[in-house]
Amino acid sequence: MPASTNRQVRLKSRPIGEPKPDNFQLAEAPMPSPGDGQVLSRTIYLSLDPYMRGRMNEARSYAPSVDLGQVMVGATVSEVVESRYAGLAKGDLVLGYAGWQEYAVSPGPSLRKLDPHAAPISTALGVLGMPGMTAYVGLLDIARPKPGETVVVSAAAGAVGSAVGQIARIKGCRAVGIAGGPAKCDYVVNELGFDGAVDYRTGDLSTALKQACPNGIDVYFDNVGGDILKAVLPQINRGARIPLCGIISQYNATELPPGPNLAPILVNRALVQGFIISDHVDRTPEFLRDCGEWVRTGRLKYREDMVDGLERAPEAFIGLLRGKNLGKLIVRVSPNPTR
Amino acid sequence: MPASTNRQVRLKSRPIGEPKPDNFQLAEAPMPSPGDGQVLSRTIYLSLDPYMRGRMNEARSYAPSVDLGQVMVGATVSEVVESRYAGLAKGDLVLGYAGWQEYAVSPGPSLRKLDPHAAPISTALGVLGMPGMTAYVGLLDIARPKPGETVVVSAAAGAVGSAVGQIARIKGCRAVGIAGGPAKCDYVVNELGFDGAVDYRTGDLSTALKQACPNGIDVYFDNVGGDILKAVLPQINRGARIPLCGIISQYNATELPPGPNLAPILVNRALVQGFIISDHVDRTPEFLRDCGEWVRTGRLKYREDMVDGLERAPEAFIGLLRGKNLGKLIVRVSPNPTR
Repeated sequence: MPASTNRQVRLKSRPIGEPKPDNFQLAEAPMPSPGDGQVLSRTIYLSLDPYMRGRMNEARSYAPSVDLGQVMVGATVSEVVESRYAGLAKGDLVLGYAGWQEYAVSPGPSLRKLDPHAAPISTALGVLGMPGMTAYVGLLDIARPKPGETVVVSAAAGAVGSAVGQIARIKGCRAVGIAGGPAKCDYVVNELGFDGAVDYRTGDLSTALKQACPNGIDVYFDNVGGDILKAVLPQINRGARIPLCGIISQYNATELPPGPNLAPILVNRALVQGFIISDHVDRTPEFLRDCGEWVRTGRLKYREDMVDGLERAPEAFIGLLRGKNLGKLIVRVSPNPTR
Repeated sequence: MPASTNRQVRLKSRPIGEPKPDNFQLAEAPMPSPGDGQVLSRTIYLSLDPYMRGRMNEARSYAPSVDLGQVMVGATVSEVVESRYAGLAKGDLVLGYAGWQEYAVSPGPSLRKLDPHAAPISTALGVLGMPGMTAYVGLLDIARPKPGETVVVSAAAGAVGSAVGQIARIKGCRAVGIAGGPAKCDYVVNELGFDGAVDYRTGDLSTALKQACPNGIDVYFDNVGGDILKAVLPQINRGARIPLCGIISQYNATELPPGPNLAPILVNRALVQGFIISDHVDRTPEFLRDCGEWVRTGRLKYREDMVDGLERAPEAFIGLLRGKNLGKLIVRVSPNPTR
């Protein structure tokens, strides 16, 4: 029998700069009840991702913002508690977008049923979810790397970056990661098998990049923008491709800082392509087929940074924007019945 | 009988910042003599183009720099004086790359014979030459505008920009030019038929752009970079395309200034593509067919800013980088026998 109340994390006020704990409010709501075609689900895992910072602003980015007083949005893996939708039954495990709360009512067709035997269900939020697909589509469809090329990725120990470098290696490229601190650099090279890693927090990034990429940079998968993009651009090769996936360096910025000088893009006939993974849902079957297979065979590794309890989501999210996590950041909201 | 000496403009010293007249040296050389397979030609028209500023630097850009003491490079329309190449005869008019000098010896195959009845021969340096082809390829192959879209072009009164806006209109787009001063803006709208023009020298560029582009910007053909690119980016539409053709605003810069913030490129899934027209010579036949026809039928207009005398080339080139010319800047080095 479900609990009678539903704990939620709501957006209490809009952050100016870095989010603070008191921008969020832990609240209780009555247990919702599913209507026709709807499903009541209990959240097991809540994904925390950098894009959520944009949703906290008033200005619309590529998706609408969260209204004040509303539950924070986010992808979730949940267990169906009550179903009034023919396609799902009590006990089914589903990927959805229930947000930062313990229970949610969702339209049945918005949920994707997960097979817990195919892969651990939490991977639907990471390596086999939106972050993994961002890596897959951004690298393979937009950057189109050729064997032997040098692929550089920033936030390399993160959910997207760690997949980018490994998929680049599967495709015969040289993968170099940029990450903050020795633990992340070590992880990227020694656990994920990248060919090299550069710690942007120590020494001169340009020199370190030059040493790690003696043949220049053919693909730069950019998650962060800012100073790292500035250091990369002068080292790109002719015909370089730069999928622009995120600008985490400025998500907390209160005004838009200047960007990199674009001269190397002109001189090298380079391509910069902004992309948002939700435009590419048509690639889901290939993504799940390829990355699912690579995960099963151990060619595509991942790590999860698990935080217990919905009430810790705000603090974990603030840490994510500071680069504190190692691996995909996930909040365990309630126990996972499959393990 | 040709003269016995050959006047040349050589690179005397490398400019720091804006070129000065004394970076150039007017000199006399012995008349060169063609070997087997070569052609001696007399320069009629010398093209002056912004890219030449890059050739004056020591650092290699996308093409090698001019060595100190060497003749400045440049495209030319010339008359064949003596031919030891089977494909060309005395009196033929040719497009070549003779540089800033009165006579030159060139390999026969490097010259393209011009038909003076098809179009005035000077157009081979402008609307039917490299600048026109830059507009044609950059707009049609890279930006791929759809009818009804808004196309914005900077340096709109220049050789490239004036063709971009007119080709955009031929293709059913709304064309808005950005230019410096009322004379250029008037020319762009009232002579070339652009739908609008914005003078970047007066008032607030962002506001003026917003008024001129009420439906946002789908294509920005960027010739200049810098502050104009910064003002354009926040107004691009989803799926916008930005062919990056030149960064004239910083050709005289002594260090690379910061660029625009790239957030709008990410949010709008926009594409930025650097391109160099010499990579696209395979498109020459279509370019000459289409633009030749549009010039003949008056749909593609052009203006030439003609300067008389090789010795005035340095001063004219310095003015070009300051935006002083209106229309394609050409030096008349010797009389045109066809008019």
